[in-house]
Amino acid sequence: MITQNSVERFLGDLAGANPTPGGGSAAAIMGAMGAALVSMVCNVTLGKKGYEGVESEMRAVGAEAERLRARLTAMVAEDVAAFDGLMAAYRLPKGADEEKAHRAAAIQQSLKRATLVPLDCARVCAEVIALSRRASERGYLNVISDGGVGVLAAHAALRSAALNVYINTPALKDREFAEAAAAELDRLLAACGPESEAVYTLVRNKL
Amino acid sequence: MITQNSVERFLGDLAGANPTPGGGSAAAIMGAMGAALVSMVCNVTLGKKGYEGVESEMRAVGAEAERLRARLTAMVAEDVAAFDGLMAAYRLPKGADEEKAHRAAAIQQSLKRATLVPLDCARVCAEVIALSRRASERGYLNVISDGGVGVLAAHAALRSAALNVYINTPALKDREFAEAAAAELDRLLAACGPESEAVYTLVRNKL
Repeated sequence: MITQNSVERFLGDLAGANPTPGGGSAAAIMGAMGAALVSMVCNVTLGKKGYEGVESEMRAVGAEAERLRARLTAMVAEDVAAFDGLMAAYRLPKGADEEKAHRAAAIQQSLKRATLVPLDCARVCAEVIALSRRASERGYLNVISDGGVGVLAAHAALRSAALNVYINTPALKDREFAEAAAAELDRLLAACGPESEAVYTLVRNKL
Repeated sequence: MITQNSVERFLGDLAGANPTPGGGSAAAIMGAMGAALVSMVCNVTLGKKGYEGVESEMRAVGAEAERLRARLTAMVAEDVAAFDGLMAAYRLPKGADEEKAHRAAAIQQSLKRATLVPLDCARVCAEVIALSRRASERGYLNVISDGGVGVLAAHAALRSAALNVYINTPALKDREFAEAAAAELDRLLAACGPESEAVYTLVRNKL
């Protein structure tokens, strides 16, 4: 059964005046929800009459979705740590020149980390979207709407992660790194937007 | 701090072979995450230098977001109950004519409930989207990406709720009810799609 209290507690943390957990954690959780729903479609399909032919495919998709879910779940804490690290760097002393240089370097290092976590989240969400197509194409018809919810969650997560990359890249002094991150993100967004809509339409037409 | 274990436990429930919690609960949670992020933007904005003029607006938006978050959080359990009720109706005996009639009536009543919960979720998500615009237009710039994540979560939630209405309406014998539900949903989707994109673009351009 659903753990109502635990969800309420997390949502309370999200709503609070503390900036963590924030949008970065929310992105990772939405991605993990997408992966979990893909898993569920696969799990429910196994053993259903008329679906014997897709059993090995559903096992493979389900196992992959579980691997991605674990990665995305771990990113919730990683995002909080990256954000808190960045805030700590900004609070470093900036009196003497040496302190200033140390602080600037710490900020740049923290900014890279705070960029890499959501970039990785975006990559993994793109993989979840690819899995949602396989689950939605061949999964048990009675739970196929869950595949549709899965792709919506994963795509919203990808775009949310993108915002968390974009908020950090302008302040990065390593422009090569910043532009490579933005370019990779643009490719992921350009590919996954139409693909997510296609999976949603595929599901919608089965209902 | 974030309650990592509670989130992991919920995601495990979602991924499992049991169809509840499923996409309907995930929709309500995504909507609640959207409302929570709107709240957070308002909460962080309060007391910030240069934002004195929007304080009463942020208080009003934040209070409204908290009201919607509570409604959406309650819908997680309501969706599970509606789905389980429908499954129970399908399992009723169908031997004698009287049993058949009783079962058919119970199924229709459960289908209505399983339609009304996600329809209400969609309505509330539309309200969250409207609030996300106000928070993103006037909230503290450093957390504005969280307003963008909020609108993405609320819009994905609305479209997810829509799938959970569409999966039930074809089996409804009360066609007037079914068509009114579908028509209301179509209006919400048509209005909220462009509005969500507009808020996302507004946020994106502030980063």
